[in-house]
Amino acid sequence: MSSIYSNGLEKNEANFSPVTPVDFLARANDVYPNAISIIHGALRQTWAQTYQRCCRYASALKKAGIKKGDTVAVMLPNTPAMVESHFAIPMVGAVINAINIRLDEHTIAFILEHGEAKLLLVDKEFSQVVKRALLRLPNPPKVINVDDVLYDGPGEAIGDVFYEAFIASGDEGFVAEPPTDEWDAIALNYTSGTTGNPKGVVYSHRGAYLAAVSNILEWDMPKHPCYLWTLPMFHCNGWTFPWVIAARAGINVCLRKVDPALIFDLIRQHKVSHYCGAPIVHSMLINADDSLKQGIEHKVSAFVAGAAPSAAMIEGMDSLGFDIIHVYGLTEVYGPAIVCDKQHHWQALSLAEQAQLNSRQGVRYHLQQGVDVFDTVTGQPVPKDGETIGEVVVRGNITMKGYLKNPSATADAFANGWFKTGDLAVIYPDNYIKLKDRSKDIIISGGENISSIEVEDCLYQHPAVMLAAVVAMPDEKWGETVCAFIELKAGTSATEAEMITHCKANLAHFKVPRVVKFEEVPKTSTGKIQKFALRKQLNSKASIAN
Amino acid sequence: MSSIYSNGLEKNEANFSPVTPVDFLARANDVYPNAISIIHGALRQTWAQTYQRCCRYASALKKAGIKKGDTVAVMLPNTPAMVESHFAIPMVGAVINAINIRLDEHTIAFILEHGEAKLLLVDKEFSQVVKRALLRLPNPPKVINVDDVLYDGPGEAIGDVFYEAFIASGDEGFVAEPPTDEWDAIALNYTSGTTGNPKGVVYSHRGAYLAAVSNILEWDMPKHPCYLWTLPMFHCNGWTFPWVIAARAGINVCLRKVDPALIFDLIRQHKVSHYCGAPIVHSMLINADDSLKQGIEHKVSAFVAGAAPSAAMIEGMDSLGFDIIHVYGLTEVYGPAIVCDKQHHWQALSLAEQAQLNSRQGVRYHLQQGVDVFDTVTGQPVPKDGETIGEVVVRGNITMKGYLKNPSATADAFANGWFKTGDLAVIYPDNYIKLKDRSKDIIISGGENISSIEVEDCLYQHPAVMLAAVVAMPDEKWGETVCAFIELKAGTSATEAEMITHCKANLAHFKVPRVVKFEEVPKTSTGKIQKFALRKQLNSKASIAN
Repeated sequence: MSSIYSNGLEKNEANFSPVTPVDFLARANDVYPNAISIIHGALRQTWAQTYQRCCRYASALKKAGIKKGDTVAVMLPNTPAMVESHFAIPMVGAVINAINIRLDEHTIAFILEHGEAKLLLVDKEFSQVVKRALLRLPNPPKVINVDDVLYDGPGEAIGDVFYEAFIASGDEGFVAEPPTDEWDAIALNYTSGTTGNPKGVVYSHRGAYLAAVSNILEWDMPKHPCYLWTLPMFHCNGWTFPWVIAARAGINVCLRKVDPALIFDLIRQHKVSHYCGAPIVHSMLINADDSLKQGIEHKVSAFVAGAAPSAAMIEGMDSLGFDIIHVYGLTEVYGPAIVCDKQHHWQALSLAEQAQLNSRQGVRYHLQQGVDVFDTVTGQPVPKDGETIGEVVVRGNITMKGYLKNPSATADAFANGWFKTGDLAVIYPDNYIKLKDRSKDIIISGGENISSIEVEDCLYQHPAVMLAAVVAMPDEKWGETVCAFIELKAGTSATEAEMITHCKANLAHFKVPRVVKFEEVPKTSTGKIQKFALRKQLNSKASIAN
Repeated sequence: MSSIYSNGLEKNEANFSPVTPVDFLARANDVYPNAISIIHGALRQTWAQTYQRCCRYASALKKAGIKKGDTVAVMLPNTPAMVESHFAIPMVGAVINAINIRLDEHTIAFILEHGEAKLLLVDKEFSQVVKRALLRLPNPPKVINVDDVLYDGPGEAIGDVFYEAFIASGDEGFVAEPPTDEWDAIALNYTSGTTGNPKGVVYSHRGAYLAAVSNILEWDMPKHPCYLWTLPMFHCNGWTFPWVIAARAGINVCLRKVDPALIFDLIRQHKVSHYCGAPIVHSMLINADDSLKQGIEHKVSAFVAGAAPSAAMIEGMDSLGFDIIHVYGLTEVYGPAIVCDKQHHWQALSLAEQAQLNSRQGVRYHLQQGVDVFDTVTGQPVPKDGETIGEVVVRGNITMKGYLKNPSATADAFANGWFKTGDLAVIYPDNYIKLKDRSKDIIISGGENISSIEVEDCLYQHPAVMLAAVVAMPDEKWGETVCAFIELKAGTSATEAEMITHCKANLAHFKVPRVVKFEEVPKTSTGKIQKFALRKQLNSKASIAN
């Protein structure tokens, strides 16, 4: 429709620039050049130094032939090289593919081949598994060895070039090449698919920018946070936090591995203000020896995702003096894109009631357009009654471009203008959603749907339970019944009968586990419980394929 | 350049939505329906109510024939109707044109005709001047009368419809029509041009969205602020704060006019946390009677723009317990887009040194791409020495689309990929800029450039000076010399000789005013000093044209 606003008001270089989170680094360098950007052991970098190193790194990538639309893979723990890679690689228009460092050689080989990585950075710790993966490839990428100062374990140089020498070969005067279109790809993240091959989720500069800004808004994160890297950066690009911390000119406190003693030390020493993690990370801190926790007087705020925080966890964090915020998302939505925002009037409620409300996944991010729960048959929104189960769907700019080289999976994921998460949930009258299950995790017993999460929530209320995983067990009579796997807290004990009694007191009879097993539960590298592995075990099938 | 990322990863309705600040209202309604959105006298609205009213209002606009790309003008003080107009008008794709309520009938008529307003909302207080303006128009817009509950002065109904009846005629179930393109126009703001006709600055949904989010980031503004409307919403859409406050689900404390007693009452009563204003607003508060200031214990944070806060102002605000942040911008960049971000290490400095640093305009906003100072002849960046004067240029998404129906002015403003502000400044080694003058305000005496701001800064250091304005005075020998206009603080006195002595002690001789006049200085409705009027007076030309 033509109007007076249709002409003479076009975009130009002065009034329009494609948004990119890479610009947050440039601004941190402009405005806070002397502020600390990275702490890693005894190493300190300022934002000016990080910026200069990333310019050199990007220049070196260009000299090595890396160009717009090329994939550069990294196999790195949470080190300075990992932070720098999140800027330097997109500075030349290339796409960062951060690979899960716990993966086996077959999967690594699949990812490198599927993603067509031209270059691969490898931390010495992972040189052996990567070396074996590369042997499987007809056209392996060039490799850059990363010798981290804090790693003194075994490993070898499997590439010709070392990271520091590579950076030194670049020009400090290099100027970042902004994306020609903010829809350009910035990152490639493979999901740890439980069946079939991993899918490569592609992020855009626009999505990464808005997700990062929205994380700041959800968290009310002020300038200059001190952020501890408990969450792997290979997981949804650390939920976009390498970019968040640059935007806020904060400190990245690097961390090669999750170790409670070290974490408390770093929190104490550097006055860490923020960190993210799966529930297992927070549980480890809560259940750590009291002697480790001494001397932390400042406020620490944490994001938890991957599972709802139990009342015990919220209470435990509270007693640590830590504030915990429950967020929810998936790789496909840049990590969290739903937040259980705490309403002021909840403060008047009991801790148990607050825990109940906080256990919900919540509402859409500020900069995400929508979240809803749709009936899986009709595709219509379910009533907001907190009872009717449907599939969680999301839409908006904090949603992936699609799956790389996988048009059918992409088409399946996007239906009728929404991204289908595959998670089952209810929605409450206040628009907060609560997950009931992954669609494949729901247990159907005698025709009744049983939410495995509901049973787990009940088990977590037992004081001895450190971790609970509930899955379907084949049953001739009922089709499926409930089986619980439990890890107990150190120094506690419990019996199967005791657990069943506890559940009977709190759950409808048909939801009570028939079998309770006390054993270590298989988890992904990000702490997610691998229920498919538990189901396989119960189905007495062959051992878990890689 | 083709790559594996070029295909199968297209935008769709699930992963891309045009950004618009209108969505902040929808989210506030989704997430915080019962939180207070508006306080106006005894009136209270919740976000659910504001949302419902805006849906009805938008529906009524549509029924009245308003469509995408139409202009809807408003002549309103800072009332609920003004807040609502910032959402309802763009909800149907129309463009809000908020007219300065202090304007004369000629200028109002020019704006209505040039902007082609189809509809006009008029607060009863301004019915007379608008009535006269409408008589000048061949095709006057339809008029909606706004009878504000807090206005009991003279006026009349000049339109057929009243605001509340108009809203009531709309459907509550109306769904906002999102922009088809985020580059679509959302607002039209006429600059108070000092020469020639006002120019119509056009904002986009994208720019308004990013400007609003960036204001949150610069201010570290947490959720649920209580925002007092000391800044007119007709001024750059209140620097985007109607949208900011919706994004943060805060409270809009409306205010028909700036009155210190009322302002302190509202701050005390509602625990106002944030407000914005020109320096004159802050000066009025600092210089208000002490009895008005009692009982305010909480922290209040203020944005100041329009002129640098003097050391006395910073000290005065400090003694009130108020924090002041200096920002800078123009109508063309959505209000402020440059912030004098306070660096941590400044806290160790003396108040005078801090004031010196804070008097600088600062650095680019988080979400603005760049600010620089260019040599006015060569167009090249000036050295970052804090001495070399050039023109401030900005670029990025927080920059207007252009001037409506004015391609030549638009082309002049955008040159070589930057927007030229017309302000003269220096840039320091730390990338902070400091304004030296509007290009037309610089005084050239005996071939030497004199910054009128520098002389004003000196005058503000005198304890009796409430307001100082320095302009060029024609001089046969020197071409121009310096003339100062001063408003004294209540209860103080000073002589011309005293002021000149004060300046001689602090300035180079050629910069010292030759003449000092003690009189009220003409200002715009937003508190900006109208130097062109002072110059006209000195040039002994005809009295000031309207």
